[in-house]
Amino acid sequence: MILVKKALSIICKNTKKNLATENINTEKSLGRILAENIRSVVDNPPFNMSAMDGYAVHDNPSTGIYKVVDVTFAGKPTKKRLTKGKAIRVFTGSKLPKGTKAVIIQENIKKLEDKLIFNITKKIKLGNYIRKKGLDFKRNKIIITKSKEINSRDIALLIGANVKHVKVFKKPRITLLASGDELIVSNKKKPEGSIYASSLFMIESLINLSASKCISKKIVKDNKNIIKDELNKATKADVIITTGGVSVGNKDL
Amino acid sequence: MILVKKALSIICKNTKKNLATENINTEKSLGRILAENIRSVVDNPPFNMSAMDGYAVHDNPSTGIYKVVDVTFAGKPTKKRLTKGKAIRVFTGSKLPKGTKAVIIQENIKKLEDKLIFNITKKIKLGNYIRKKGLDFKRNKIIITKSKEINSRDIALLIGANVKHVKVFKKPRITLLASGDELIVSNKKKPEGSIYASSLFMIESLINLSASKCISKKIVKDNKNIIKDELNKATKADVIITTGGVSVGNKDL
Repeated sequence: MILVKKALSIICKNTKKNLATENINTEKSLGRILAENIRSVVDNPPFNMSAMDGYAVHDNPSTGIYKVVDVTFAGKPTKKRLTKGKAIRVFTGSKLPKGTKAVIIQENIKKLEDKLIFNITKKIKLGNYIRKKGLDFKRNKIIITKSKEINSRDIALLIGANVKHVKVFKKPRITLLASGDELIVSNKKKPEGSIYASSLFMIESLINLSASKCISKKIVKDNKNIIKDELNKATKADVIITTGGVSVGNKDL
Repeated sequence: MILVKKALSIICKNTKKNLATENINTEKSLGRILAENIRSVVDNPPFNMSAMDGYAVHDNPSTGIYKVVDVTFAGKPTKKRLTKGKAIRVFTGSKLPKGTKAVIIQENIKKLEDKLIFNITKKIKLGNYIRKKGLDFKRNKIIITKSKEINSRDIALLIGANVKHVKVFKKPRITLLASGDELIVSNKKKPEGSIYASSLFMIESLINLSASKCISKKIVKDNKNIIKDELNKATKADVIITTGGVSVGNKDL
């Protein structure tokens, strides 16, 4: 028996790392292995953004009266510029008006009348509740490095960074050979002494769970020439996985 | 905010558990949810099987001389019956000859000449290295219970038990709606103040990782009637997942 660590090391030493690459849609890249470092195409957030529902103000705000001069929703920014004593209604995710120095969250204000607000409860610090442009990551910054397997969070990151395509390694094509005169598949007549080739299907499903592709699976008789033939025929495979023949018996070829 | 536990409990309380079922090939059942208890079709092992390479003997073997009268490979059983003083060469996985009381592993014998073996090192117990018919599981025994998600090991178990088809729940069809005037997908012109709908694609990929099916994903404007329309249109969905509108702002509909 060989320890898993040792087996992996033997495999890595004897493997040519020359898998081809391909460009695929980011949306379809789940589970694939990156063949390049990925840089963001945009700043994120793409603009100074409100982190909360509230009111954007220009001056170093303390308790005081502000005139609400406009409203801006996420996706619908105002053209107006803030000046001292003015406030603009903002919502989470909305682009902050020019001149914004802080956001007062709505929980901390009291409306006096329709167009007036009164900051009542807390002193506000400059920069409060502003998610600055590029706070998460800046344009051209490496956001995911080569060789990483792309997971669901990475998909969100890539889409948010406006990365439309990624270069990934092609899925290794795997040929699966189970050797054993006793092995059969279920739909065949069951000869005496035979057993179902269960590991063939288990390994196929494990391949399907990884970023690989099982291109062929086959039961092979315990015969040196047949095994040799099948190995030679597997020219389209990047990887051949065999089961059986692991001991020192007369049929462990 | 609602805790995950609480959220799950609300969802479960308000869910009709009436997903349809379907019969699928065992080979294709990875990740699916069983809609029935699964019983084995066969005994496993299907016959008394040798657990090792060695020699099957009939008598309570101790140090002694045996005549090797036949050889049996996995998948190629012998018709011969063992009697006292006789041995038959067996290999791992091979069906044991009639009359087998124990297997002497090859490490513990010394061959005297072509047809003779000499048990030299250890006293052998009756039943040694015999994997009895039905040891793992017996025909008609429940081997996997309803509601289990089928993993790779289960595939091996089902194939080994000669279960050709399994009844599973149909994949829940999920409609994904992300509401927000600011949301866009990458191939559209980017209006000021907009951001990429990254969570839409992340959630889609999470759905694809589960035993579910994303049948539709869409960005919806912050408008009560449009949201209502889209919810009404999602008649083919078993589940609707929405994002956005989670706070108390004027556009959190």
